Amino acid sequence: MLVRGVKLGVAEAGIRKAGRKDLLLMTLAEGASVSGVFTQNRFCAAPVQVAKEHLASGFPRALLVNTGNANAGTGEAGIAGARECCDAAARLVGCESRRVLPFSTGVIMELLPVERIVAGLPACVADLREDNWTRAAEAIMTTDSVPKARSQRARLAGGVATVTGIAKGAGMIRPDMATLLAFVATDAPVAQGALRQLLADAAGRSFNRISVDGDTSTNDSFVLIATGASGGTMIDSPGHPGFAALREAVLEVSQGLAQAIVRDGEGATKFITVCVEKGRTDTECANVAYSIAHSPLVKTAFSASDPNLGRLLAAIGNAGVRDLEVGRVELYLDEVLVSKDGGRAPAYREEDGKRVMAKSEITVRVVLNRGLAATTVWTCDLSHDYVTINAQYRT
Amino acid sequence: MLVRGVKLGVAEAGIRKAGRKDLLLMTLAEGASVSGVFTQNRFCAAPVQVAKEHLASGFPRALLVNTGNANAGTGEAGIAGARECCDAAARLVGCESRRVLPFSTGVIMELLPVERIVAGLPACVADLREDNWTRAAEAIMTTDSVPKARSQRARLAGGVATVTGIAKGAGMIRPDMATLLAFVATDAPVAQGALRQLLADAAGRSFNRISVDGDTSTNDSFVLIATGASGGTMIDSPGHPGFAALREAVLEVSQGLAQAIVRDGEGATKFITVCVEKGRTDTECANVAYSIAHSPLVKTAFSASDPNLGRLLAAIGNAGVRDLEVGRVELYLDEVLVSKDGGRAPAYREEDGKRVMAKSEITVRVVLNRGLAATTVWTCDLSHDYVTINAQYRT
Repeated sequence: MLVRGVKLGVAEAGIRKAGRKDLLLMTLAEGASVSGVFTQNRFCAAPVQVAKEHLASGFPRALLVNTGNANAGTGEAGIAGARECCDAAARLVGCESRRVLPFSTGVIMELLPVERIVAGLPACVADLREDNWTRAAEAIMTTDSVPKARSQRARLAGGVATVTGIAKGAGMIRPDMATLLAFVATDAPVAQGALRQLLADAAGRSFNRISVDGDTSTNDSFVLIATGASGGTMIDSPGHPGFAALREAVLEVSQGLAQAIVRDGEGATKFITVCVEKGRTDTECANVAYSIAHSPLVKTAFSASDPNLGRLLAAIGNAGVRDLEVGRVELYLDEVLVSKDGGRAPAYREEDGKRVMAKSEITVRVVLNRGLAATTVWTCDLSHDYVTINAQYRT
Repeated sequence: MLVRGVKLGVAEAGIRKAGRKDLLLMTLAEGASVSGVFTQNRFCAAPVQVAKEHLASGFPRALLVNTGNANAGTGEAGIAGARECCDAAARLVGCESRRVLPFSTGVIMELLPVERIVAGLPACVADLREDNWTRAAEAIMTTDSVPKARSQRARLAGGVATVTGIAKGAGMIRPDMATLLAFVATDAPVAQGALRQLLADAAGRSFNRISVDGDTSTNDSFVLIATGASGGTMIDSPGHPGFAALREAVLEVSQGLAQAIVRDGEGATKFITVCVEKGRTDTECANVAYSIAHSPLVKTAFSASDPNLGRLLAAIGNAGVRDLEVGRVELYLDEVLVSKDGGRAPAYREEDGKRVMAKSEITVRVVLNRGLAATTVWTCDLSHDYVTINAQYRT
């Protein structure tokens, strides 16, 4: 569903390969609020550095996104290239350069082909439309096999607002703040502080809770936009009557996009939900969940539908929770109790494990029985195709 | 080379599969010193718990090792099973049960077949010989494709001592204290405190510096034995004239075994040395090295001989060194300078990267330029065969 106040235009700029959409320009109505979270990878990409700087300096009017080249590991030349692209977009949009946010995704440590991007911009401008979200989702794909877009309506006090988002990502997925390029926009009116809270809440329960391969990207960026075009009173705090409904809609769109990334994970054949419950802190729950989600041995067992579930115990024990009492841990595969009292559950039968492992969507539930915290992480299996895709990525 | 005072006997006990050596008994001369380090996985195996307890209570006379079953994730029944095996071995050897150390490796969360182990013990005893190290190395293999044994001589003040060791391991390799079953013995006379120093030094620079898949096992154990049968004065401190030579021999045997594990890593086709230099602390050097060694994207690039070296930058940036100045980092592939000043080195050419990536032994050198610490980690690539091996492990 379109978001009033946001227009999108795409083009084939030939950045890496000819004949595919690889450039996206989003323009925002004057007065839109924008908030963003970015990768914590120290080799963060040039566009991430420039986007952070521009976001800090004022109100963005445009977002420029290219695929095919990450402009990361490119030093000072990369920064200069990102700025040139912003300059060119700003001239066409009619705003200052610092009101353009740049985003890139693709191969690392190759210089950005600035002239091709600049040459492709007029076509983006000519293509600008409010109902262009689907084509925009296609234009930001790299190893993604499907475009990723989600939309929700939120019933607010002053009427109905729309929340629509797109994302890309299939590999190098273990976001530390957000994931490889997600853009979510609403036409609700939201003040900057409240927008930042909505963003942090959604990131923490969506993009920051997924992993395909444990590799945190250099280019992760998640941007939330509120144009205010739907009218109504400004949502300026969690106390505002519209805040809760909008938070839910933003979270649903963000979780939908994050889960779509995992489902489209490189080589993924299974979608795994890892719930860790009754921990002392969210952090230790997340550590246990990621230890499972990142274990190649667990992931290959899922790929093979083999209930080699001792590997799950090894991953739990390997999560760095030094004072964990393993005798209190319960492990479930869907509804099947697999392990308790430090060993195999007496009622567990191999055929039950086999039955669950054969499914394409599986929930691993770990009950630590030492506190009240809980968290959920989404991940996928590790298959032959993962190796194939990543051996051939640049060819 | 045999170690005077150590005898080894193997048997086919049919623990998991028939017709293969899967049980090893080592007996030590009275008066031998023994030191050990063990996994920090919280789901540590029953034999690890019993071995630690027995080691703390006195001087071991025997080590009992089975393959085919890890006796991990087996709760109280697992502890009881390990004790029964020690009891049976102690009766045959003629010592107290607490002077037997048990070790197991194999599938997790399945009960140990105690009766088969007990039934196999007399054959082990009948087979006890000092020149049995090679057969012992075979008897402890699981997914290993080759037996792993190394030997060195150390010239000490009082004569020449021998250091001989065996190890097993190919997957679930990211030792936190030691790796899946390594036993190193010398006939030099070494006091308990000095032996512990030799063990810690060797572990820190060998088994604790390798990774195949980042999964820390439930059963990792590294034991160092000194029988004293070579004679000479007791090596009781680093100040003793024989200490340095013996330390070097123990380290060489341990590194040789550790590197053999990596070379035999599941599906491995390449041997990768990751050197991180000029860091502030050993810990941050190790974090950077392991971030590279654990990245599935880096490992698949090595598997494909593809110089997609931006993935190395992403892994360095992803190592959790929050104040790392990436503009100071230099990255070398063998002697080729790939990256500096935050980007690609001006002189770097793709064909140089391709040439190095095509080799079967490659050194990745990262110079952080922020201190004096350095460390080295050994790892391997991630290939289709890794997925195949781990999908079929139990079948």
